[in-house]
Amino acid sequence: MSLSPLSTSSLAVPTRTWAADLPSHAGEPVTLGGWLHHKRALKSVLFLILRDASGLAQVVVDDPGTRTLVESMPHETVLTISGDAVASAQAPGGVEIHHPVVSVLSQPAAEPPIELFRPDMTAQLPTLLDEAAVSLRHPHRAAIQRVAAAAVEGFRSALRAERFVEIATPKIIGTTPEGGANVFTLDYFGTPAYLAQSPQLYKQVMVGALERVFETAPAFRAEPHDTARHLSQFLSLDAEMGFIENHFTVMAMVRTAVASMVGAIAGLDIAGTYPDLAPPPVPAVIPHIHFSEALEMISGATGEDVRAEPDLAPAHERWLGEWAMREHDSDWLFVTGYPMAKRPFYTHPDPARPQWSNSFDLLFRGLEIVTGGQRLHRYEDYLAALSARGIDPVGFTGYLEAFRYGMPPHGGFALGLERFVARLAGIGNVRETTLFPRDMQRLTP
Amino acid sequence: MSLSPLSTSSLAVPTRTWAADLPSHAGEPVTLGGWLHHKRALKSVLFLILRDASGLAQVVVDDPGTRTLVESMPHETVLTISGDAVASAQAPGGVEIHHPVVSVLSQPAAEPPIELFRPDMTAQLPTLLDEAAVSLRHPHRAAIQRVAAAAVEGFRSALRAERFVEIATPKIIGTTPEGGANVFTLDYFGTPAYLAQSPQLYKQVMVGALERVFETAPAFRAEPHDTARHLSQFLSLDAEMGFIENHFTVMAMVRTAVASMVGAIAGLDIAGTYPDLAPPPVPAVIPHIHFSEALEMISGATGEDVRAEPDLAPAHERWLGEWAMREHDSDWLFVTGYPMAKRPFYTHPDPARPQWSNSFDLLFRGLEIVTGGQRLHRYEDYLAALSARGIDPVGFTGYLEAFRYGMPPHGGFALGLERFVARLAGIGNVRETTLFPRDMQRLTP
Repeated sequence: MSLSPLSTSSLAVPTRTWAADLPSHAGEPVTLGGWLHHKRALKSVLFLILRDASGLAQVVVDDPGTRTLVESMPHETVLTISGDAVASAQAPGGVEIHHPVVSVLSQPAAEPPIELFRPDMTAQLPTLLDEAAVSLRHPHRAAIQRVAAAAVEGFRSALRAERFVEIATPKIIGTTPEGGANVFTLDYFGTPAYLAQSPQLYKQVMVGALERVFETAPAFRAEPHDTARHLSQFLSLDAEMGFIENHFTVMAMVRTAVASMVGAIAGLDIAGTYPDLAPPPVPAVIPHIHFSEALEMISGATGEDVRAEPDLAPAHERWLGEWAMREHDSDWLFVTGYPMAKRPFYTHPDPARPQWSNSFDLLFRGLEIVTGGQRLHRYEDYLAALSARGIDPVGFTGYLEAFRYGMPPHGGFALGLERFVARLAGIGNVRETTLFPRDMQRLTP
Repeated sequence: MSLSPLSTSSLAVPTRTWAADLPSHAGEPVTLGGWLHHKRALKSVLFLILRDASGLAQVVVDDPGTRTLVESMPHETVLTISGDAVASAQAPGGVEIHHPVVSVLSQPAAEPPIELFRPDMTAQLPTLLDEAAVSLRHPHRAAIQRVAAAAVEGFRSALRAERFVEIATPKIIGTTPEGGANVFTLDYFGTPAYLAQSPQLYKQVMVGALERVFETAPAFRAEPHDTARHLSQFLSLDAEMGFIENHFTVMAMVRTAVASMVGAIAGLDIAGTYPDLAPPPVPAVIPHIHFSEALEMISGATGEDVRAEPDLAPAHERWLGEWAMREHDSDWLFVTGYPMAKRPFYTHPDPARPQWSNSFDLLFRGLEIVTGGQRLHRYEDYLAALSARGIDPVGFTGYLEAFRYGMPPHGGFALGLERFVARLAGIGNVRETTLFPRDMQRLTP
């Protein structure tokens, strides 16, 4: 028995014109598919706004039978519409559909609980999140998801161009690097295990094999904070590289990655529609300031002596963000040299002033969005660092192997996608930037 | 106080020549960085093989002092080597380094437990996995990771070109779609929760917002099977699209994605070094056969009547793989129309023969690597499907909303990355294709 393979045509994707492509089809017959987004009934005509993933299309309904049909349809009815694409100065996008033949492809069971056609949804955040299956259809929320997707791909493409290799590391781990705080525990075939808070240890190990690696994957934090900035699951954009001079090498790569993310977002075709989603340019050299100088400066400016603080408070980050804009015309600012006492065990000290570290944060509009630095690379330094913190090295055997058998000076960074997108879009609550957020109260939808 | 930003040069990545780029530097002074991969001491010279992430470089050591230094070094010593790149017909790659100045950048604490310079590592699989920090440095294992990374990016770039938008869905979920079998349970702020086995329900919901979506993210299965094919965590390449005609539309997109994955792998510069990692071409049209015809054919050929079987056994998949190669000269074969009884509740039946489904598997060399199909899209069909299986719809409220408020005909597919790479590279055990595998016995490294 022998089978003839299907012809190419029967295996093809059905032909359809996207709303965003209409301007190049003026004067042609087209078939659109999408959702009944809005109806505006005037005396002589009814304007049907069809929404597809690319945008909105205005359909002019003047046939009485079609008008009656459309008037009876609930919003979000899924339609295919064939008609003539006609240039029209009044139509959004400059083209509208005349003489439409409207077919119902899928009938909703009810009117949606949110009015998607309004430019701003009026529902409160809990409702928007509970009704995510509907609220995510709103063009502005959908646009935010495109921004997030573009940011991730901008990150990856910049690093691939610099010979970074993508990796996938375990999210279920047997030991907790940071001592077990804020970590989710699970039952792993009868053994306790944990959800990874970061790929830190694995990406360092992979520097030994691939020198430059990145990962874009979920990370999990059981932080008992119900704030506008905390999520239990977030997308962590991580990179790690070998053969660095110090943390400034890593900062140069951060600048490359961030500039590519911003470039990818700026290249989206939604840029014109949503000015609030347009990212600010990244300077060729991002200004930087040492932690100790930052505290001196804040103390001098505010009159409050914060020079002994071990970390930057959110108010200090905001102050520095304003300073960077004022003095350097930059939305971006590196703060370097955070005190060793507040950084994790793998942090490399500043060789000249070992109370400070070879680490950095990148502030974006006064909010920390990237953390990174140089790591220790000598086996004996790791044993000493773990011992000084009273951490048993037994749980770290597979990690310490990498240093035992030869590791170059290396460093890396991590960027939390949701925080970045929230800050970019001026969104106060990080939950609005992710599809189905997870927090202390929220495990559905 | 005002700070002058660093000059561009002090924020630059140090200049260094990669081993793979040496052919374009013949006749120039170069500086390399990497690991001491191998030493071959002859009477008059010592050949030092330096390994970096891009490949190997042969360094000719004839200065007695340098030779003594190099002879004392353990393998995996991290070095920088400055010297002259000289064309040499005998050297691997056609260029070798003369007059090297060798500097130790990082000293290992011990000789590595695995001889990385051997073309094939002789250690058993458990040792290779326990010593992952070292074994992953082996050029062939590192190359497999590059293949995996290229496959993922090939998948993404093909779908982006078709207007798919990348999404990130929750990995911690409150209900278990498939009834709770083989799912990991975790403690979510005092509430039981589960690790997602697939993004299925979320990617369907997102069709309502973005029409075409994909995700490349870890998925988790607590399958109590200690076989060469099972992992507790794997990378799931998922896609879902709206406005399809039926499952054949999805199959056309699968072909596009798989061809791009294969193209990305074929484009890697390791292709020549490792013939076993070269992927077979994807035919312009992948042959397909209906499940019922497949069983008829197997019954006829083997004499064993399997026509009433509800699924394909691994031996049947292998038989079909051989048949596809013999009859259609294809490593790839779609099997369509699996019985509804064996498919999940959201599966769309074949309208003409409702005991069969509008679903498919893609076999690659006789192993199922993709599963997909058309899904139900009407709200009332979901209520009926859940009811027929005795599943309480209450746990699915957020999911059912998508169908309640208008969803187009849609479908999608999922591809398990590790299985694909294993089949491609002729690797018998899927654990060898992933960096730090997780299985019933293995939670470290």
